[in-house]
Order: sequence, then C-alpha cells, then structure tokens
Amino acid sequence: MRICKLHGKIRFYFILTVLLLFIVGASLTALLPKVDHDEVGVLRRDSWPRQQQHSLADSFTIIMQTYNRTDLLLKLLNHYQAVPHLHKVIIVWNNIGEKIPRELWDSLGPHPVPIVFKEQTVNRMRNRLQFFPELETEAVLMLDDDTLVSAPDLVFSFSIWKQFPDQIVGFVPRKHISAPSGIYSYGSFELQNPEGGNGDKYSMVLIGAAFFHRTYLEKFQKLPSEVHSLIDETQNCDDIAMNFVVAKHTRRPSGVFVKPVDMRNHERDASSGYTGMWHRAEHLLQRSYCLNKLADIYGSMPLQYSNIMISQFGFPSYANHMSKN
Amino acid sequence: MRICKLHGKIRFYFILTVLLLFIVGASLTALLPKVDHDEVGVLRRDSWPRQQQHSLADSFTIIMQTYNRTDLLLKLLNHYQAVPHLHKVIIVWNNIGEKIPRELWDSLGPHPVPIVFKEQTVNRMRNRLQFFPELETEAVLMLDDDTLVSAPDLVFSFSIWKQFPDQIVGFVPRKHISAPSGIYSYGSFELQNPEGGNGDKYSMVLIGAAFFHRTYLEKFQKLPSEVHSLIDETQNCDDIAMNFVVAKHTRRPSGVFVKPVDMRNHERDASSGYTGMWHRAEHLLQRSYCLNKLADIYGSMPLQYSNIMISQFGFPSYANHMSKN
Repeated sequence: MRICKLHGKIRFYFILTVLLLFIVGASLTALLPKVDHDEVGVLRRDSWPRQQQHSLADSFTIIMQTYNRTDLLLKLLNHYQAVPHLHKVIIVWNNIGEKIPRELWDSLGPHPVPIVFKEQTVNRMRNRLQFFPELETEAVLMLDDDTLVSAPDLVFSFSIWKQFPDQIVGFVPRKHISAPSGIYSYGSFELQNPEGGNGDKYSMVLIGAAFFHRTYLEKFQKLPSEVHSLIDETQNCDDIAMNFVVAKHTRRPSGVFVKPVDMRNHERDASSGYTGMWHRAEHLLQRSYCLNKLADIYGSMPLQYSNIMISQFGFPSYANHMSKN
Repeated sequence: MRICKLHGKIRFYFILTVLLLFIVGASLTALLPKVDHDEVGVLRRDSWPRQQQHSLADSFTIIMQTYNRTDLLLKLLNHYQAVPHLHKVIIVWNNIGEKIPRELWDSLGPHPVPIVFKEQTVNRMRNRLQFFPELETEAVLMLDDDTLVSAPDLVFSFSIWKQFPDQIVGFVPRKHISAPSGIYSYGSFELQNPEGGNGDKYSMVLIGAAFFHRTYLEKFQKLPSEVHSLIDETQNCDDIAMNFVVAKHTRRPSGVFVKPVDMRNHERDASSGYTGMWHRAEHLLQRSYCLNKLADIYGSMPLQYSNIMISQFGFPSYANHMSKN
C-alpha cells in the first residue's frame, strides 16, 4: 500500500515539475528581445532592407524587344524584374509564330512585377516604338535584349531623367558629323574632331539603354510614312529617328549621357548564336544613309551637340571626384 | 663717238632689264598663295587660332578677393587674364591701406582684359559679395586668390552655368548632415553616409571656384543684418550663406558640381607664408555653427542634396567615357 502511494506522489510531483519548467521556459522566451528583420546595417542574412513601394510618378516601365534570344531574355529578366522603381515589363515579341514563355514565367512565379508579352505579326525593328496600352508610367526604359545594366546605374539614370524629362537620358552616346559638302556621317568617339582639341561631343543617345517620356512614342507614330518606310527598309535607324523627334520638339540636344558604371553586353551568350543587327556589314553605312534621308525629310538637321557627361557623385567610391591635389 | 653711243645703249638696256626684273618679281610675289595665319591645324609657331571676341551675354567677370598674397595674385592673374570668354577682372583689395599694384600692372601692359582694383576700408570676408558697379556681365566667376583653375575647366563650367544659370556651378562640393537631434553639421566626402551604400551627395557648392548669377550679389546684400553679422563675427561662412540664398530662391539644390580636370591650390607659394583662413583651428566647427545659426534665421533648412557630377565628354581623352566592355 505504501509503495502505491509513493508512485502516485512521484507521478504528481513529476508532472508538476514538467509543467513548471514549461511555464518558466515559455516566459523566458517571450521576454527575449525581438529580432527586427528590417534593421539596416546589421550583417545578418535577412537584414537587407525591403524595397519600397513607389508611386506611378516615381516608377518606370521597361520596354524590351526580343528576337531569337529567348534564353538570354529570360536571364536578363531575372535581373530586371527586381530593379527598384520598376512598375511593369513589356516584352515586344518579334519571334513571329513562336509561343511566348508565359507558362514558364508563371510556373516560376510569383514575380516582383507584372510582365506583358506583346506578340507581333511582322518582325519589324520599329515594333518597340508602338504606344502600348499597358504602359501606365510616364517614363519608359527601353532596353536591348542583350544588355545588362546594373540597378544602381538604372536608378541613378532614372533620377536624372526626372530632371530632364523631355530628353533621352541614357548610356550610349553617338554623333553625326557634317562634312564640308553638307553630307552627314554617323560615328562615335573615334570620330571626334582631331582639330578640335577640346574634347568630344555627341548628338544622339541611343534608345537601346535609355529613359524617355512616353509621349515620344506617340510622336513617333505620327511621323510621316517615309520615316517608317526608311526604318522598315533598313531594319535600322529607329533610334536615330527618335533622336530627330526629340531634338525637333525640344530645340535642344536630344540626349543626356549618363556614364554607366556597370553595363554589359551579353550578345555572345545567346544559344542561338544570333548576335544582333549591328554586326551586318552595311549597318553603320545605313546609319549615315539614314541621317541624310531624315535630314531631307525634315528639311533640316535638328540634331544638336552636347558634351555633358553625368556621373553619380561618390559612386562606386569617392575616388571618382577627388582632385589631384 | 661710237664708243659713247655704245655706253648709252648699254646703260639704257641695263636699266630696262632691271626694271623688267623688278616688275616680274613683284608680280610673281603678288601671285603667291597668301599665308593664312589663322589656319587651324598647321603646325607653325604663329598658327594657334586667335581668340574670338565674345558678346557680353557670352562672357563672365572674375571677382577675386585678395589678402596678403599679392605675389601669388599677380602670378594667377597672368593665367586668368587670358581665359576665353573673360570680360573683366575685379580684384577686391582687402590689403587695407596698402597701395594697389596699378602701376606695375599698367607698366606690364597691354593686357587682354581690363582690371579693376576695389580698395576696401575694412578687411571683411564678405567684401567680395558687394554688387560692384563695374560688373557688366550676368555671370560672375568667383575665385579664391590661391586657386588656379585651368582654362578648359573654366570654359566648360561656364557652358554648364549657361544651362543652369540660377544655380552655383563650381568645382568644390560640400555637404551638411542632419543629426537625429535636428542639429546640423558640416562636412565633405569623409562624411558620406556609411549606411547608405548608394554613393555620396552634396548640398553646397563653394564660391571660391564657381560661377553664379550677379543677382545673387544683390540678394545677399538684402539679407537680414544677422546674417551679415554672423559672417563678420566668424570671418567665415559667406559661401554657406550664398548657398542658403540660392536654395531658398530656387527651391532646388543650390549647386551643380563640375568635376575639375586641373585645379590647383597654390597657398603654399605665397611669399608671405599666409595660407588662408581655413587653416584656423575653429574653421570647420564655425561652419557647422553657421549652418545652425542660418537655419535658425531662415526658420528652416533650405539646402537640398544632389548627387549629380558633371564632366566634359571626351576631355582630356575619350578614355573618360569608355565602358569596360
């Protein structure tokens, strides 16, 4: 009888002890300081600040035309979908008759931003300059489907575009020169004036990596049909035409050049081996040809020169603005 | 008789021959192609293009205050007098009671531009911010009397100022920070936000090497007397005050920073050994003090941040804009 009673007491105190330990343990855990996952500056895996939501006025839309480089496109999209201030991505699908990768995209969701695939009926260079109804922001970021521009470059360049909203703000400057005969020719830095001695200048900023206002898409659509025909005939020069549109409208240099810190061309990475139109033999001569045709159509040369180069103060490091002394 | 006649004939034909040679020689010389001394690109001693005359709207006036560094001043003036687009030099003479070097200057004339020495009655830092009647251009280039800025830097910066005429366009960016307590402090690049990770920013461009519009001199004169007293008390902060004036007026960042290619400080070259006010122990602390006093007087902090850094495209060489790839 005494042994049974002892068992009962032991069981009772055992259960009581367990309960007490549990209560104490739970209390202590509740009293521990909370881990704040959004705390900036703490070097822990989950402490990178969450991206902010931005208003429509403070956002931009990527318009990216693609042809024969879907693998490259998808790789780039993993980067671009996460860039701050991005509202939406519009892919201009020039792979006529080929299925868009919608299923693949959705199966790998969710994604930071919505994407729209605009399937085209004809493979045209100027397809990307349509005024897409899905475009909700004022700012367009137009990108080639083989170019990777870093997020800091894009965010900084967007901030510059907001200060020069009627110009093309981008990373690729080019120029035209005017020969004594009055004939125009197209070039880049290698065409700087050897007798100038005062640096270089540019008269165009290419739209393969640039911000511009959506209204220029409307203006492009309203251009004389000869301009559209020229672009269709060459499958080239849509960007030169856009610079003409902007220069004519603003009566100022069409572009503002922002020097990129990290912009990379991945054309060699496409599994199709397709490296883009600019490798064609006639590509550059076409662009000179376009300059003269467009000046003819416009009745004058509206392009103006600029020599402003904008960089981000103190980025990546403050060595970028330190004087010699 | 026959011999005399022969002499006569010989003399006649001799004179005729000399005359003919002279006429032929003169004609040939006149027909030689003219040597154009202004021809660009020909490597001859006298072939550097002559500087152009610029309109008042396309010119600027240097205002340079000087104290105890006349030897250095005169060395700098030989450089500055020859900078393109310069209309006139105004020297604010803070060497009270000391003769201006007018005789020396005139004896070494002629000079490319006129110079005016404004003799002051009291040695004050803010003397340079008077609205001088001799000032005819809209653009003022204010320079410290120990700083040499290259001509390309100045001409480029002037072209930038013409695009941002209501801001201070110059070569020396500085910032204020706002402590959690609401107290302001003054600094430079070493004060960039370590938790930012997104480059640096500036909220002031100092007027010791900068272009600004002449109206800001008028606005400065009209500031409350407390501001003038603050500057007189510290013999400092006139440039901070000017940035407050511009920021308040434009409701934008007061300055645009142009990265200098060749700007040198010659303070160590003054024979007087005087190296300038900024070496005083209290100088930087005074500037933080001024920020707080000015914010108090203004009732708010009007200074705004910018991270735009402007450089001249392709100068000195096109390496300055070439991407990595």
